[in-house]
Amino acid sequence: MEAFEKKVRDSFGQQRFMSTIGAEMISVDRGSVEIRFPFSSKLTQQNGFVHAGAVTSIMDSACGYAALSVAPPEADVLSVEFKVNFLSPGIGESFEARASVKRAGKKLAVCTADAFAVRAGEEKLIATMLATIMNIDSNAS
Amino acid sequence: MEAFEKKVRDSFGQQRFMSTIGAEMISVDRGSVEIRFPFSSKLTQQNGFVHAGAVTSIMDSACGYAALSVAPPEADVLSVEFKVNFLSPGIGESFEARASVKRAGKKLAVCTADAFAVRAGEEKLIATMLATIMNIDSNAS
Amino acid sequence: MEAFEKKVRDSFGQQRFMSTIGAEMISVDRGSVEIRFPFSSKLTQQNGFVHAGAVTSIMDSACGYAALSVAPPEADVLSVEFKVNFLSPGIGESFEARASVKRAGKKLAVCTADAFAVRAGEEKLIATMLATIMNIDSNAS
Amino acid sequence: MEAFEKKVRDSFGQQRFMSTIGAEMISVDRGSVEIRFPFSSKLTQQNGFVHAGAVTSIMDSACGYAALSVAPPEADVLSVEFKVNFLSPGIGESFEARASVKRAGKKLAVCTADAFAVRAGEEKLIATMLATIMNIDSNAS
Repeated sequence: MEAFEKKVRDSFGQQRFMSTIGAEMISVDRGSVEIRFPFSSKLTQQNGFVHAGAVTSIMDSACGYAALSVAPPEADVLSVEFKVNFLSPGIGESFEARASVKRAGKKLAVCTADAFAVRAGEEKLIATMLATIMNIDSNAS
Repeated sequence: MEAFEKKVRDSFGQQRFMSTIGAEMISVDRGSVEIRFPFSSKLTQQNGFVHAGAVTSIMDSACGYAALSVAPPEADVLSVEFKVNFLSPGIGESFEARASVKRAGKKLAVCTADAFAVRAGEEKLIATMLATIMNIDSNAS
Repeated sequence: MEAFEKKVRDSFGQQRFMSTIGAEMISVDRGSVEIRFPFSSKLTQQNGFVHAGAVTSIMDSACGYAALSVAPPEADVLSVEFKVNFLSPGIGESFEARASVKRAGKKLAVCTADAFAVRAGEEKLIATMLATIMNIDSNAS
Repeated sequence: MEAFEKKVRDSFGQQRFMSTIGAEMISVDRGSVEIRFPFSSKLTQQNGFVHAGAVTSIMDSACGYAALSVAPPEADVLSVEFKVNFLSPGIGESFEARASVKRAGKKLAVCTADAFAVRAGEEKLIATMLATIMNIDSNAS
């Protein structure tokens, strides 16, 4: 495992909120990250679908870690802001966020993520995110 | 309790994800809603602060319910999209989202929300959201 | 020329603001539209680069027309909201927005656009947009 | 005139695009700026209303200058990103953007702006923006 992947996976492993919602990191490449959680009735909104906040949470983590995967070795990252559009209800057996870096600058990275619901083996796009991530000194965080 | 408040509180009570993160509805008025959760180590990111996704989740629900509080009696709502800026780390004993309707149209409402961390009795603004909510026929959802 | 293309080009031809900034429609396909303007000192900000507002304007029109190209024949469209990230300064001989429909629903479409600066024959990505467009009855507008 | 106001007004005076759309700076205070343009048929979209891009352009400049008004004396600013919601059509005799700083950090400021159409002496809210602005070294820009 390369150093950037180890750094990303170690940090993800410390995000207690990700384990609370049952999320695991599926893949880490330079500039792209996938995170997934299975459906759970603990994550639902008023109609029994998955809450937009749960889907947004794995998209946010995936964008942050996509940025971290290309950041300098000593840097940590934090989310400056993001926007997410919801395209279809969160109905499925599992939910997956796929993020990639659109542009990485010295201080800021811009990332995009799509989220999919998987149902009976078929994927459906349910949300899309555009996010700004900032590199910070990990010793200062 | 007025009909709009009962409708909002009943729907919130069905959001299992809100109880998973320990959130409760603090107040419901026409056009404004407050939701809060106490700090829990289950909600943290890699540095032990509250995960942006948890804060975003109560802001999203607060915006949706602010819109629902002014929607026609038979309507339900869903989040079309939102943007959130993170202003300070999620450090505190409790976290509160306060949403209000900026403009309610026939089909769409635009809402804003601020999120605060409460620490030793002092509030700090930690995030701000601008959201678009759509009215839908509740029988169809 | 197909009906959707004629409808898009006719509407664009009526956008006086597009001719004020020197913009022309480069291409129209089902679900994607390109708009370009040449550099002009009339469009600059304080450093002599092209103003973010001018670039945003062609991205907005391109997203709207991408949505219109797949809307029902009798529909018009309007921008509900958009977000744009600026990635590099607007330096170049011409500026081009390329929009495409990410998902078209009955009422709402979600579109993305990238903007490029062209300089000495090379393209540089300078901005990216995520937009929500609404179908409206063209007789009502 | 205080130094921050002179700096803001001088920079605005160099934005050729603002004079192209007929915009003037109405007021500059620490942390808030107002910019206005009168209706002109040069600024219209396909229905004869003011183009969303023209309204967005003065909101963007107003946010940037609100941030500049509280930035260190030697700093310049640039727009990292913004999101804007359109609430009503751009119909009126004049259009005004009012921006204020929501939070100013060392590197980044978050600003909000509302835009109003003025018609027969009455103001109508037509758009709202949430923007991220970055401080940069003005000698480097």
